[in-house]
Amino acid sequence: MSDTTPTIRLNKGGGARLLRGHPWGFSNEIVMTAEAKALPPGSVVTVETPGGDAVGSAHMNPHSLIALRMLDRDPTVAIDAGWIAGRLATALAWRERMFDTPYYRVVHAEADGLPGLIVDRYGDVVVIQANSAGMDRMVPMVAEAVRQVLSPAAVVLRNDSSVRKLEGLGEEVRLVEGTVPDPVLVAEGGALFPLDPMGGQKTGWFYDHRDNRAFVARLAGGARVLDLYAHTGGFGIQAAVAGAASVDLIDRAGPALAQAAQAAELSGVADRVTTRKADAFAALEHLVKTGEQYDIVVCDPPAFARSKKDVGPAAKAYRKLARMTAQITAPGGVLLLASCSHHMDPVSFAQQNARGLGDAERQGRLLRSAGAGPDHPVHAHLPESAYLKAIVFALD
Amino acid sequence: MSDTTPTIRLNKGGGARLLRGHPWGFSNEIVMTAEAKALPPGSVVTVETPGGDAVGSAHMNPHSLIALRMLDRDPTVAIDAGWIAGRLATALAWRERMFDTPYYRVVHAEADGLPGLIVDRYGDVVVIQANSAGMDRMVPMVAEAVRQVLSPAAVVLRNDSSVRKLEGLGEEVRLVEGTVPDPVLVAEGGALFPLDPMGGQKTGWFYDHRDNRAFVARLAGGARVLDLYAHTGGFGIQAAVAGAASVDLIDRAGPALAQAAQAAELSGVADRVTTRKADAFAALEHLVKTGEQYDIVVCDPPAFARSKKDVGPAAKAYRKLARMTAQITAPGGVLLLASCSHHMDPVSFAQQNARGLGDAERQGRLLRSAGAGPDHPVHAHLPESAYLKAIVFALD
Repeated sequence: MSDTTPTIRLNKGGGARLLRGHPWGFSNEIVMTAEAKALPPGSVVTVETPGGDAVGSAHMNPHSLIALRMLDRDPTVAIDAGWIAGRLATALAWRERMFDTPYYRVVHAEADGLPGLIVDRYGDVVVIQANSAGMDRMVPMVAEAVRQVLSPAAVVLRNDSSVRKLEGLGEEVRLVEGTVPDPVLVAEGGALFPLDPMGGQKTGWFYDHRDNRAFVARLAGGARVLDLYAHTGGFGIQAAVAGAASVDLIDRAGPALAQAAQAAELSGVADRVTTRKADAFAALEHLVKTGEQYDIVVCDPPAFARSKKDVGPAAKAYRKLARMTAQITAPGGVLLLASCSHHMDPVSFAQQNARGLGDAERQGRLLRSAGAGPDHPVHAHLPESAYLKAIVFALD
Repeated sequence: MSDTTPTIRLNKGGGARLLRGHPWGFSNEIVMTAEAKALPPGSVVTVETPGGDAVGSAHMNPHSLIALRMLDRDPTVAIDAGWIAGRLATALAWRERMFDTPYYRVVHAEADGLPGLIVDRYGDVVVIQANSAGMDRMVPMVAEAVRQVLSPAAVVLRNDSSVRKLEGLGEEVRLVEGTVPDPVLVAEGGALFPLDPMGGQKTGWFYDHRDNRAFVARLAGGARVLDLYAHTGGFGIQAAVAGAASVDLIDRAGPALAQAAQAAELSGVADRVTTRKADAFAALEHLVKTGEQYDIVVCDPPAFARSKKDVGPAAKAYRKLARMTAQITAPGGVLLLASCSHHMDPVSFAQQNARGLGDAERQGRLLRSAGAGPDHPVHAHLPESAYLKAIVFALD
């Protein structure tokens, strides 16, 4: 780093985890001098041990609980567009080893050595999202690195995630360069999905459930499928392509359902797919009352627990969903229950689901218990960042 | 059940879990009368609430901590060969939906509604194992049901698992009927493996790692692969078939390595596969010393923690293995670390691995964190029975 790079010192108690390989330093683990406090959020700093040895570079945010996000364990390396391009190239090389087509998350933040940065790829359309103050400041360098490494036709900035607030950042969605084709298409499981990288949820598509969708599709031959919280129909439409007899997609968002209908059309299964705008709980209550049953039920709600204090009510909601979805799953049917709540740990989630099954007086075996796919790697020292949980029951 | 079926009553405190759907009743949850104590281990009994309502049938073992293993929630159903055949047919139907060829675990005990029973299928060779006193008594009925449902060419009884001791059962391995072809072959991942259902480990093959082997194979193109605790070479030989440049298999068991060499031959990759009889720790120490490196290292040891008191030493052993295997994994390499210790929970296992990586001063991302494949389902109320943990690191 240059001579003018500010230095942050770890305090005596703090930093042990960081020195062992953890990517973060918390605000109570550093010596918070007046100078440190005055640093612009997201500054690149050199991190020192209590004894004064430089141990690496980090992004510093004096206003965040996560004060330090480690960038490089070599303090002499310059943090610039070339450095980002190097990390991006490594992340890309792993994806290219694992996937046959260029549809995946290229960068998954800390796990890919680029804290706070998300890069999703839809063929030659690239969507980036900066979720930390440090990465927010580096967006121009990120765009430059993306240009170098991926040569995309279009780069979209989707800086509108809710976690940005924790870092004191505002919202911004814009086309950084190029032209976004209309529609942008994702090919997955033999189906085609149009998506809106400027206006849809997240970056436009949820790659994380890819393997879970494939697993359900494998069981879908001849099945009546219900896809709750269907969004743009990822689970349901791939099930239809795999041979499901009928697929009902339910979601509260009209635009997502319109995209789903388009996807069904493009995938040649429109005759077996219906969309319905409804609240999932209300729809379930109605279905339970009428006694309608499905061979496969998929239930992938948005995060119920957005903070630690939500965990109690969220647990109740997951249990209730498990009960109601089990009630409308036919004997011998398949039930996928998912949670993307970071604060809901896998053991508690499994417990609530088992209780919900008990409430419905149903027995079942767990065929699968999985997280996100391998384009969403997990940092070795942040196992708790594996937010996604998907459980597949085979019900008796 | 018949009028002569003995009755076991749940006591006031106990049984709540069982009534909610848990498959076991512990010895302190039942009214242990003199009659109950005198029942032959493995008797079929009718289970009653404290109020005297019959709630189902169970296997009863008065000498085991797990006194009751629920068989059927309907107390009027006869527990006979026909009943077993029904459960077996259901279990088989799930496998047939998930797999294209008849190579899988057909019955995985409690999760498939047949407590204590394992049935593995190798084409038309079927291996059964009874791990509870109740199932042990029903072996003739199980054989009859297997005959009915699977019509196999041979049925082998492999009653030599260590858990049988907990149920007071001895060892017995025998051919129940038919003729076992020589060799018995398993086809997986484009490779062919000969196995010995009468003499090998477990029932002859470990289906549980199937998806993990496929994941590693996908990354194996051009790689130098080290397969530690290789057994009959499942990981390594599939990696060779997928294009690995070289594969070293290390195991302490000569017969397993001989089978591995045969598998390499049958799979057409003998020129790229070597076998070495050695202790994994000793081999690792030597490799660390000489500085040899591999692009892919697979390390799938036998259970280090066979009881709760082993957990401390086991944790140290896993950490040491993670350190040494990371040291001999080349930059940009892949490291698979597995544990089949029931007593080592997934969070602790991940922790020990992260520490081992830190000890080796290596950084890495977790590409995958998985358990056994879907032919090893988990009972909804026994999530802790998911014994297998496999973690795949992509190292920097």
